[in-house]
Amino acid sequence: MNTAELVELGQQLRVDSVRAAAAAESGHPTSSMSAADLMAVLLAHHLRYDFERPDHPANDRFVLSKGHASPLLYAAYKAAGAIEDAELVTFRKLGSRLEGHPTPRRLPWVETATGSLGQGLPVGVGIALAGKRLDRTGYRVWVLCGDSELAEGSIWEAAEHAGYEHLDNLTVIVDVNRLGQRGPTRHGHDLDAYARRFQAFDWHTVEVDGHDVDAVDRAFGEAESTTGQPTVVLARTLKGKGVAAVEDREGMHGKPVPDAEEAVAELGGQRGLGVRVGEPPAARMLHSVPTSALELPRYDTGDEVATRDAFGKALAALGHARGDVVALDGEVGDSTRTEMFAKEHPDRYFECYIAEQQLVATAVGMAARGWVPYASTFAAFFTRAYDFVRMASVSGAGINLVGSHAGVAIGQDGPSQMGLEDLAMFRAVHGSTVLYPCDANQTARLVAAMSGLDGIRYLRTSRGAGPVIYGPDEEFEIGGSKVLRSSDEDRLTVVAAGVTVHEALAAADALAEEGIRVRVVDLYSVKPVDRATLRRAAEETGCLVTVEDHHEEGGLGDAVLDAFTDGRPVPRLVRLAVRTMPGSAAPDEQLHAAGIDAVAIAAAGRLLVEEAVVR
Amino acid sequence: MNTAELVELGQQLRVDSVRAAAAAESGHPTSSMSAADLMAVLLAHHLRYDFERPDHPANDRFVLSKGHASPLLYAAYKAAGAIEDAELVTFRKLGSRLEGHPTPRRLPWVETATGSLGQGLPVGVGIALAGKRLDRTGYRVWVLCGDSELAEGSIWEAAEHAGYEHLDNLTVIVDVNRLGQRGPTRHGHDLDAYARRFQAFDWHTVEVDGHDVDAVDRAFGEAESTTGQPTVVLARTLKGKGVAAVEDREGMHGKPVPDAEEAVAELGGQRGLGVRVGEPPAARMLHSVPTSALELPRYDTGDEVATRDAFGKALAALGHARGDVVALDGEVGDSTRTEMFAKEHPDRYFECYIAEQQLVATAVGMAARGWVPYASTFAAFFTRAYDFVRMASVSGAGINLVGSHAGVAIGQDGPSQMGLEDLAMFRAVHGSTVLYPCDANQTARLVAAMSGLDGIRYLRTSRGAGPVIYGPDEEFEIGGSKVLRSSDEDRLTVVAAGVTVHEALAAADALAEEGIRVRVVDLYSVKPVDRATLRRAAEETGCLVTVEDHHEEGGLGDAVLDAFTDGRPVPRLVRLAVRTMPGSAAPDEQLHAAGIDAVAIAAAGRLLVEEAVVR
Repeated sequence: MNTAELVELGQQLRVDSVRAAAAAESGHPTSSMSAADLMAVLLAHHLRYDFERPDHPANDRFVLSKGHASPLLYAAYKAAGAIEDAELVTFRKLGSRLEGHPTPRRLPWVETATGSLGQGLPVGVGIALAGKRLDRTGYRVWVLCGDSELAEGSIWEAAEHAGYEHLDNLTVIVDVNRLGQRGPTRHGHDLDAYARRFQAFDWHTVEVDGHDVDAVDRAFGEAESTTGQPTVVLARTLKGKGVAAVEDREGMHGKPVPDAEEAVAELGGQRGLGVRVGEPPAARMLHSVPTSALELPRYDTGDEVATRDAFGKALAALGHARGDVVALDGEVGDSTRTEMFAKEHPDRYFECYIAEQQLVATAVGMAARGWVPYASTFAAFFTRAYDFVRMASVSGAGINLVGSHAGVAIGQDGPSQMGLEDLAMFRAVHGSTVLYPCDANQTARLVAAMSGLDGIRYLRTSRGAGPVIYGPDEEFEIGGSKVLRSSDEDRLTVVAAGVTVHEALAAADALAEEGIRVRVVDLYSVKPVDRATLRRAAEETGCLVTVEDHHEEGGLGDAVLDAFTDGRPVPRLVRLAVRTMPGSAAPDEQLHAAGIDAVAIAAAGRLLVEEAVVR
Repeated sequence: MNTAELVELGQQLRVDSVRAAAAAESGHPTSSMSAADLMAVLLAHHLRYDFERPDHPANDRFVLSKGHASPLLYAAYKAAGAIEDAELVTFRKLGSRLEGHPTPRRLPWVETATGSLGQGLPVGVGIALAGKRLDRTGYRVWVLCGDSELAEGSIWEAAEHAGYEHLDNLTVIVDVNRLGQRGPTRHGHDLDAYARRFQAFDWHTVEVDGHDVDAVDRAFGEAESTTGQPTVVLARTLKGKGVAAVEDREGMHGKPVPDAEEAVAELGGQRGLGVRVGEPPAARMLHSVPTSALELPRYDTGDEVATRDAFGKALAALGHARGDVVALDGEVGDSTRTEMFAKEHPDRYFECYIAEQQLVATAVGMAARGWVPYASTFAAFFTRAYDFVRMASVSGAGINLVGSHAGVAIGQDGPSQMGLEDLAMFRAVHGSTVLYPCDANQTARLVAAMSGLDGIRYLRTSRGAGPVIYGPDEEFEIGGSKVLRSSDEDRLTVVAAGVTVHEALAAADALAEEGIRVRVVDLYSVKPVDRATLRRAAEETGCLVTVEDHHEEGGLGDAVLDAFTDGRPVPRLVRLAVRTMPGSAAPDEQLHAAGIDAVAIAAAGRLLVEEAVVR
């Protein structure tokens, strides 16, 4: 396209942004209008993308990090012929694919859900890393950021990661329109301020007038020809550009322009322009997946093995069976044991350093490209990335997250290192799976099984060694449980998972000596939960004790209660969990102090059974 | 002290770090040894701190951001005469104040709990901001960071905030020992790499040999005399410095040195050095608190008011009554309505821009200095700061967090903006309070009441307007509830909070027309929960329906079940919650699609009552 045509295309994108928001009576047209010329140039001259084949292995990847500028994205889809005008004006309406913030659950051309700011770039870095080190089909990743979101630390985690990894297949375009939601940004139109920051993280920077289409064209070209560094194009723009009533004015964020008809006229009216987006080069289909039979490590019952060790070995084995499995570390691979994978599959191992948001974002980006990521850090530190986990579920991303050092059982390190909220956090995510194995063979099986599930999959491992109680051929269904002790005379059921399974077994032995027979359920699948087994246990034994190395809210106890929320009467139940703030102490002292060891379980069980008799 | 004495003091700190870890048989001596000379110089020549009066208003504030180097901190306390040697060797033992990672819950000289990396600096920025703009007693904030933690985005959020606010009362010392937990850091000993980054964020930087005590002394002096900018002292050090078996060697993180006795000898043996830490200047006690009678806004029943509006007005009123209340915004003050506070109390309003980790960290820092912070953003975006909330509870910090735009009821913006995990997230935090008002008068009362509680207090507000149902003089106990409909013939209880209260009332009306009398409980205090009222309702009505604008895990439904986990039989219960991934739609369409509107409640209630009859 020539200059005039590019200008016209930019105006059409503005017009359609205004129209979409007007039809919806909500949305962010002014945030779209500032970036319209940037989008026009990208579409017409730089992006290589086959809209009919969004899975084309050499397609460039575009991420709208400023997800609220969705009208611009949908206007671009229309210009590219991917959607019709009739669909454009369904924006934000019930049932429309064109949501307020774009998501790949609804639209095949969206790489990742955005709308929580500061996430598009981190995920884009993950995709670019996959492009550079795994896919190698030559695609470029384009990320359009707002200026407000540069205040998010996650942006600088991502900038550090991309600079360090020399991701010259990554171009970030920052729409520096000077105005955030409630007023001016910190740095206004000071492009140099942003340039200094990106340069410090070893990026190539280009500053440009974002409404000068030829200058923008040259800037994108410069990005494409830069090697050894990612490039950021810092574009000076005006929010609401082109419509005097809103242009560069405060108080115009996140709402339709006051008079849409007048605005469209001011922008030169509707046009029927189409743009021919460049074709990606021919490329083979994505990564072949060399599969061989999975040979999981096998452990003898009675051996003492930490589940984190079993995880590391199982992941390394899975890496041999599946060429699409990748592992990501948050600079604790020696503790989580992902280092075992690293030794055997260095090409598919990614060190993310102490940057948990980027750790999860990299997983999301790689999953978007068809890889099967396992990202691991301490269970406690996934709390750092909860917003990324939440948004990954909005994306529908399939990622495996493995948290080690769960609970007070870690011992001396104290509460800062103890995952005590992780079960609650992951259970509350839509469509998630939450697993908590208690022995090495179970861990190995679950590590393999989780790779095939949908959505967010979380597995919790323990620091200390515990006895192997299952044989290596035992199978563990997702959504299942194991009844470890059972008789016709059971008067109580203890439901446990992970370290508390071993405490529960000891408590059952102690109570059996007193003549109280106890059923023990290993609830390794915390979500989905095995309702049938829990209901049967409740009916047959009448009393339940749940015991977990986790705070009392949102964890195992609540998962058990979930089996009794369909209107049927719930059994007598006592919940043992961590109710105090732990300090430093040895692991067994911690379990005792928290009241989740065998002694506490036996005491609670005894009391419950006696009360049931009295009543 | 002269050079030789400083060197000796540094060696003593190393010796005591080695001894503490040896006694504990765990801990991080090598991470302590790298920073020992930095600590010696700080203690002897720069820190102004009265250990007998940790609440002295002019005390400098020291934050150990690399919290795992706790042996060094405790060795410093010993040298300063704050603790005895006998206590030093209780390190990491059950009941000791000297936990694996330091926390103010146990030690009066600790400003904030650390151990999750990348948090000490953000909190230090909050304290420095309080020092600069609120306390004005001239104290300096010293933060000792590790180099590994500079990979955390939160560090750069904090760096941006401090540079922008010109916090020249803040000095960060980075112990660049080149080695992380599992191996070399990204930048090793490249001090320039870090300097470039801090300079880009408008910091003054000094590079120094961290084992040259005179050079370190000069560097700290330079920091003290720098105006208009925060200073970072980048110190090149060796991990495990002074003991050949561990010095600058990989694989020596987080464990005692192999032979402690030999190491102590190599370091020159035990010394009995004391250090006289400088006195703080005389200063008046912290901020006087001008109090006047609290005049909360009053609303007439039947008016339509959004609870976010009621929050903003109540907070502004509270600001008049209490001079110690401060408000913090994450660049959404126009949406959360904290802008109402900003207009009336600009001196106590802090814009944190889109940086939720820094938002919460600022609150924690200000709370540490005795202020009463209210930090607010969208409920969904507090997920970004979950690790900070978790660590704030380890600190025992008293902070108020207010999340707006809760649930699917926000409407068109879609799932990225909907708080649907927030109740679960905040409930799972130790000692937290979780409030969810349904009308304007209730909101105003709870906003005021939460200021006086211990620990993390969370209040959830709604975007859309709803009817005022309580009079302005109604009182709302924390841990209480309100029974809105009740009769002797109730056959069902509906428990709701926030927007679903209004749906529950409509459902009760509809069922009453069918002859089914329904009790309605407004469970505005989600944690602690009103067990007595729920148990009475269960006993008297037999059936419960819980309904919440939140995912089904960890929220209101689980809070209700919490009342039945003491071994008593639980009632028939059905839980209505958001079980699907929402899209864009109008608020009423969203409630209907999620199955949490009046129609859904009535249907569930009808079924439950009928089933109870059949059984």
